[in-house]
Amino acid sequence: MTHPEPAPQVETVGIVGGGAWGTALALAVARAGRRPLLWARDPATVTAINLSRENPRHLPGIRLDPPVAATLDLDEAAGCDLVVLATPAQTTRAVAADLAGRLRPGTPVVLSAKGFEAGTGRLLADVLAEVAPAAVPAVLSGPSFAADVARGLPTAVTVAAADIGMADAVAAAFAGPSFRPYASDDVIGVEVGGALKNVLAIASGVVVGRGLGASAQAALVARAFAELVRLAVALGGRAETLTGLSGLGDLFLTTSSRQSRNFAYGIALGEGRAVEGPDESGPLVEGAKTAPVAVAIARRLGVDLPVTEAVAALVEGRVSVDEVMAGLLARPLKREHA
Amino acid sequence: MTHPEPAPQVETVGIVGGGAWGTALALAVARAGRRPLLWARDPATVTAINLSRENPRHLPGIRLDPPVAATLDLDEAAGCDLVVLATPAQTTRAVAADLAGRLRPGTPVVLSAKGFEAGTGRLLADVLAEVAPAAVPAVLSGPSFAADVARGLPTAVTVAAADIGMADAVAAAFAGPSFRPYASDDVIGVEVGGALKNVLAIASGVVVGRGLGASAQAALVARAFAELVRLAVALGGRAETLTGLSGLGDLFLTTSSRQSRNFAYGIALGEGRAVEGPDESGPLVEGAKTAPVAVAIARRLGVDLPVTEAVAALVEGRVSVDEVMAGLLARPLKREHA
Repeated sequence: MTHPEPAPQVETVGIVGGGAWGTALALAVARAGRRPLLWARDPATVTAINLSRENPRHLPGIRLDPPVAATLDLDEAAGCDLVVLATPAQTTRAVAADLAGRLRPGTPVVLSAKGFEAGTGRLLADVLAEVAPAAVPAVLSGPSFAADVARGLPTAVTVAAADIGMADAVAAAFAGPSFRPYASDDVIGVEVGGALKNVLAIASGVVVGRGLGASAQAALVARAFAELVRLAVALGGRAETLTGLSGLGDLFLTTSSRQSRNFAYGIALGEGRAVEGPDESGPLVEGAKTAPVAVAIARRLGVDLPVTEAVAALVEGRVSVDEVMAGLLARPLKREHA
Repeated sequence: MTHPEPAPQVETVGIVGGGAWGTALALAVARAGRRPLLWARDPATVTAINLSRENPRHLPGIRLDPPVAATLDLDEAAGCDLVVLATPAQTTRAVAADLAGRLRPGTPVVLSAKGFEAGTGRLLADVLAEVAPAAVPAVLSGPSFAADVARGLPTAVTVAAADIGMADAVAAAFAGPSFRPYASDDVIGVEVGGALKNVLAIASGVVVGRGLGASAQAALVARAFAELVRLAVALGGRAETLTGLSGLGDLFLTTSSRQSRNFAYGIALGEGRAVEGPDESGPLVEGAKTAPVAVAIARRLGVDLPVTEAVAALVEGRVSVDEVMAGLLARPLKREHA
C-alpha cells in the first residue's frame, strides 16, 4: 500500500512500445476519448502510423485514425498524463530506467506485460518502483488478445493500483463501450495471475498436443488454477482476485485458445514437433522464460507448484513429455482440497 | 451430514442406463477391478453388449470385454454392492422410485447426471434421498466426456458423499490408472457446479457463435464462475469445492469444447441458426432445461445470476442474442469484487 495519490486528470496517454499490444491499447485509449501517443523505436512504424494510419508490421489491416499518433521521442511519451509500458516483460527494467528521468513525479505508469523478472524473481511493479521512483505503478491484465481489442470486440480487464482511487482513475482512462477495465487494489494478485498463466498454458497445450483429450486438459486447468492461487497468496495477493478476469479469465483464454503463443508452443511440444527452445523463440513464449523463475520463487516460499515445475523441466529438456504427463495425471489419489 | 456409514466392500457395480455415459462408467469400473453390470431398457443394447461386446448405438467402436456385462433385469443391477444412476437428470425421480424397493438398505447410489429437478428445483441427491430412503446418496461429477473415459484417456472427477469415508469407498470403486476420482464431502457444492455449468456453457457458446471473440468469451467464463460460487454457497456448498474438478474443471470443459452439447447449442443460438427449442432437443441440452429452474432457485434465495438469467430469457425466446450480449458485456463499470 502506498499513501493515496490524487486521482489524475488524464487527457494524454503515452504508450511505450509499438507492437500489436501497444497499438491495440492506443485504439482503446482513443475510443475512451483520450489522446494516445505511441512511442516506437522503429521509424518506419512511426511514419506509417502518422501518415498511412496503420501499423503494417504488427497490426495490419486495422485503421488508426486520429487522435492516435506516434513519436520517436521518448520525452514526449513520458510527458503524458499517464504512461503505459507495452514492451516485453524482460525489458521492463531497461525501459523503466530510460523513462525514469523523464517522468513528472506522481505519473501513473501502467504495466501491461506479464511475467516475473528473470534473475531477481521480482514482480514488474516492484522493478518499476525501484528503477523509476517518480512513477506510481499500476497493472493492466486480463483476457485480451490485441486483435480483439483492436477490432473493438468486447474485452474486460482488471486495472490494479495500490491505491484504489488511482486504479479507478487509470481504469477510466481506458474505459469505452467495448473495452471494460475493472479496478482493483490487489497489484500482487493481478500480476501473479498474469505471470503464471503463461506457464500453465504451456502445460495445457502439451496435454492437447499429446492427444490426451479435452477431459484431461480440463483437469489440468483446474490444477493450474490452484497453483495461481497458491503462489499469489504466498506473495501477498488475495485469493479472490485470482477468481476474476486477471486470474481465471486470463487462464481460460490462454489455456484454451490457439491464438495464445504459449498454448501453441505447448501443443508443439506435446506433438513432439521440433520447436525452438525458449532462447531462440524470443519474448513471444513468455511462459517458457517464466517457468524456471516461478519455480525458484515457489521454492523460496515453500509453495508446491507441480504443473509449473513440470513445465520448467520440460522446456529445459530435463524430462520427456510422457514422463511429465505420467507425473501430473497419475498422481496419488487423495481427497480433493485435503 | 448423515451419520457415518460403514465403508462398503465393493465387488459388483450396477449401472442403471445403457447410454454412452453409463457404458463408459462400466468400462472405468471394469478397469478398477470391479464387476460392472449395465442395466438397459433396450433389449438390443443388452444383447449387443453381452454377445458382440459393443454398444453400437451409443458407443460404437469401443470394445466391451468381460467383466462388462448387461442385463434387462433391474433387480440384478439394484442388488449390486454399489449402484450408479446414469440416466438423464429429469428422470431421476422415476428411476429412483423404480429402484427404491429393490435396494438393500445402505446401498451407496451414485448420481452421475447434472441438473436440478424441474418443478421442485431440488438437487438430485435430495430427490434420491426422498424417494429411495434405502440409498446412501453419492455424486460423481467433473470434466469427463464419455468418449474420453471409454478410450481410457486420463480423466479426473470428484466423488462426493456426506460421509467422507463413504466418498473414499465409492471413489476407490472407480479408481484405475486412467480414471481418477477424488473424494469430497461437499455433496451440494459438487452438485451445483455440475448443474449450473451446462447453463453457463450455453452463454459461452452464444458469445462464440455471435463472433464476439475469445477475449469476450473468457470474460464471460470468469463471470460464469462467480455465479457457480454464489449459487453453491447460497445453497450450503463450499466455495473451495467450486475451484476444483467438479466446478472450475467442468466449467472449463463445457464452455470451451465443441463436443459439449450445451456449448454447441449456444453457438447455434449465437449464429442465429434455427435450433430446436429445449423441448424438441430432448434431454441432450440439459442447460436449456436447467436455466429457468436455476433462475427460480436464485430468486428464492436472493442470489444474483445475470448470466443464468440471460440464458433463461434467451432459450425461452424472450430476448434476442444482441440484447442479451449488450446486457452482459456492457454492464456498468465498477470495482472488481466490490
